[in-house]
Formats: sequence, structure tokens, C-alpha cells
Amino acid sequence: MSEPDGIWENGRAGTQVSALDRGLHYGDGLFETIACTGGHARLLTLHLQRLGEGCRRLGIEALDGTEVGREIAVLAAQVPRAVIKLLVTRGSAVARGYAVTGAERATRVTLRYPWPVEDPQLASRGVRVRTATSCLGENPLLAGLKHCNRLEQVLARREWTDASIADSLMYSSSGALVSGTMTNVFMVRNSRLETPRVDRCGVAGVMRRTVLRLATVAGIAVEECTLHAADLEQAKEVFLTNALIGIHPVRELDGRRLAPGPVTRRLQQELAPLLAGGPLA
Amino acid sequence: MSEPDGIWENGRAGTQVSALDRGLHYGDGLFETIACTGGHARLLTLHLQRLGEGCRRLGIEALDGTEVGREIAVLAAQVPRAVIKLLVTRGSAVARGYAVTGAERATRVTLRYPWPVEDPQLASRGVRVRTATSCLGENPLLAGLKHCNRLEQVLARREWTDASIADSLMYSSSGALVSGTMTNVFMVRNSRLETPRVDRCGVAGVMRRTVLRLATVAGIAVEECTLHAADLEQAKEVFLTNALIGIHPVRELDGRRLAPGPVTRRLQQELAPLLAGGPLA
Repeated sequence: MSEPDGIWENGRAGTQVSALDRGLHYGDGLFETIACTGGHARLLTLHLQRLGEGCRRLGIEALDGTEVGREIAVLAAQVPRAVIKLLVTRGSAVARGYAVTGAERATRVTLRYPWPVEDPQLASRGVRVRTATSCLGENPLLAGLKHCNRLEQVLARREWTDASIADSLMYSSSGALVSGTMTNVFMVRNSRLETPRVDRCGVAGVMRRTVLRLATVAGIAVEECTLHAADLEQAKEVFLTNALIGIHPVRELDGRRLAPGPVTRRLQQELAPLLAGGPLA
Repeated sequence: MSEPDGIWENGRAGTQVSALDRGLHYGDGLFETIACTGGHARLLTLHLQRLGEGCRRLGIEALDGTEVGREIAVLAAQVPRAVIKLLVTRGSAVARGYAVTGAERATRVTLRYPWPVEDPQLASRGVRVRTATSCLGENPLLAGLKHCNRLEQVLARREWTDASIADSLMYSSSGALVSGTMTNVFMVRNSRLETPRVDRCGVAGVMRRTVLRLATVAGIAVEECTLHAADLEQAKEVFLTNALIGIHPVRELDGRRLAPGPVTRRLQQELAPLLAGGPLA
């Protein structure tokens, strides 16, 4: 079903990695999930920027962005549509234990997957969403990064099996709204667009960043702020974003009905050229 | 220096794992670090118990404890001393994304390392310890487990390079004392032995558990409680534990001098037969 049609390690075809890789032992790495349509890798510059920033913050060997960008571009051009997962770890452990010696050479694993089967109604009619029981720990040093310590998301994703539920919203251990398990969340209150800050936990999604920029250009008031469950209850519109789906309106949240509203529709319209495989205006 | 002298995957010699392993992608796994002395794997039952409990809590396929125990025992018997790391992941991803299908088969990687070069003075004279700047996120669903989401420890370990510092004490995001990066911590106040609870974060170490039991048997009042920096300042004795080191007194904490005290010495004495390779009384 959704097995990759190709796997490359540091640019060479290969399906295995060292059993000493620190990614395997500690989740000591970062990843990007890149939507490729029309032979192009969408938002590739933003993906590589975030990955580079992650390597810098974690002290992982810097990638050659030009080389990696070229690899992704070539793989994207070979098929009409694909999802490319780019995984970068600190590399093989030089010694046992958490300590980094500085001699580690990053491991880059590139996996190309078929584009998932999707229901076009999810973007138009909206998706059903629930709230996760499990929470997200807070750590400013990891916040914003798409790192490989994802057990919290794995456990949250195990909370439901109903295929009609698109995602679960997650709160931090101190009660702040953060995101879905695999999406960022936005809400509209008093004609203003709000999304949770990602400075204590959560991922600074490339689509989140794109939507924030599109909203600003469109003259919509936007704010990244600390939001709680009570704020979400006041929201007139709620939508989810990620690199693959773009913007999905939420039509039901824990049984409460919501309608895709004008701000959501306007942003979907602004985003449409990008999702169709072209550049943004 | 400390490279493994052998690696086995699911019981067969092998140095690589699948690039689709969920351990690599999400840190979706657990591990045990087992000290082997005199041909025997110390506290093996406790290690396998904790691993089994971790698999149950994360929903990872249960191991055959008898088979794994036999593997470890055989590997321990082949050399006078060794450190065996047992790593168990949820296995290869059946599909892209966090969702677990239930069809995943656990991956077991067993690595045998040479015993580290150690300074015998650390157990007698004590170790120097600092306080980490970075904190630990809180998540009750992961607390106590020795899971593979260890970026927080990796980052904390990057804070110092001075080889005379044995470990850093870490606090949770809400300010509670938790542990060292690779040790549990105990303190003595008013002749009472205290150690942080591990129900919001931290690892329930097998040596921690052993020391708690030894203290109880020895008639020392013990408590697992919520402790803060102010409590640590009042401590008369502080010591660190893990499966390899046993008990190391702290002789210096952020520049403050401490002396190994009577409770620490008594517990070291009780633990000595185990560290020498024999059973506990």
C-alpha cells in the first residue's frame, strides 16, 4: 500500500542503516515530509531551511543543501506525484552513551512514497477531529523542530482507529493547545487568525509558515499566541495544515459542528496555485 | 575504543537494520543497558521486567522473555565482563506515518560492548556533578520507561565536556528534580533516603529499584517524592545510581562540597556482593 518505491542512504540506493545509528538508539535526528506534485518538490526551500536550522540547534553535521536539494528535485521529477521523506540523523555512534564526540558523520535517508489516496471532499467539506487524551511535554530546546523523538505522537495516534477522524488535537503538559498529531492548527476569532506558538513544544510546519505569510499578504490579521481549550470553543473557524494536505477545514471537533468559513476559504484559494503544482503568486 | 564486539538482530549476527524501522524514524522503541560481570548478566530479571512493562505500555509486540534471557545469558557467559545493550523497537513501518497497524513485528538489536575503563576512586571518593541548563518535558505516559526518545539527554550531555564531571542533574519543565542524564539521584535528609518520583518524567532505573529495596531491608526510611532544588540544598548526602556504576557518592555539586555519608556507605556495602558478580543477600 504505502511502501516506498525507493530508499537512498547518503544518495545511494540502500534499504538498511547501521545498527549503531544514533537515530535508532536515541531518535537523534530530524525529518521532512515533502509533497511532490507536477514533478516539483513543493516548498523545498522552506523544508531545507527548517532542516538546516534543526541540524544547527541539535549540533548535527550540516548538510550540503545544494546536494540534497538536487537529490530531492531529481527524485521528484521522475514521477507525477510522490511524498519524499528526508531523514537526517547524527550518524553512527562513535561510542556508547549519549555523549557526542564531534566525529559523527550525519546519515541521510531519503524515502520516496506513492502519493496517498485522498478524498477530495476533505478539503472542501472539511474533516472530523477529536482531542487527544495524551499530552505533549514541553522543552524549548526541541520546540519547533521536526525531530525524531515522536513517541508522544505515536501514542496519541493509537488513541483512535475510526478512519473518519482525520487527526487529534494535542495540548501541552501545562494545558496550552499545540497542534494535531501530524498537523498544525489555526482558528479564527473576531476575524483574526490565530495559531499556537511553537516555542515550548510543537512543530513549526512549513505549511503553517506558508499560511501565516499568505494571510499577512491577504491583509488578514494573524497572531501566534498561547491558546487554551476555552479559546478553541470561541473559534468561528478551525482548520488544519500540513505540507501534504495544505488546508483542511475542521467540520466537527469532538462532536461540535463547525462550518468552513470565509477566512479558511480565502486562504485555500490563495494556496490553490501551490497545491496545483505551481508557484505562489 | 568502546565499539561493540558483537551485534545481533533478532538473535542473528548482523550490523544493519531496515531503513524503515520505526525506531529510526520515531525513536519508537525501548532499551536496557545490562552490566555483565563474572559471566553473569546482573539484575537480568529486573531488566526484562522493565522491558516487558515498556512493551506493554507502548503497545510494542511482547518479547519471548525466556528466549531473550537465554540470549543475554549466553553472551554474558562468553566474556569476563561486558555491557550488553538490548534495544527493542516496534519494528519496520508497515505504512508511512505515526499510525500503528498492529502488523508490526518487533526488532530486537543486541549489542555487546567491552566493559568501560573505570576509575575505582569514583565509588570511594565520589564524583563531581553539575546541574543541566536544559530541562525534561513531562509526559506521564512515557514516564519511568527507558524509551528511545532521548534527545533531551543528548542535548543535556552536550552542555559539558569536562571529563571530571560525571553527570548533570536535570529538572522537569515544572521545576522538579528528576535525575542525571544517565543516572538516578538519591539524597539523604534527616537520616531519610529520598529520590524523585518518576511518574511525570525520568527513568525507573533497575539500580534505583534495587537500592530502594536494599534500603528498606536495611531499615533505612525511604521515600519517592517530589523534590526541588531547595531540597537538594538541604541534603547531607547525595548519590547517583545506574546499572553499571552501582552507587557513586556525589562529592561536589555545582562547586558545593559534599562528603560521602553513612547512609551512602551502608548502601554501597549492601550492594557490594552484587557488583562483585554474586547474588544479593
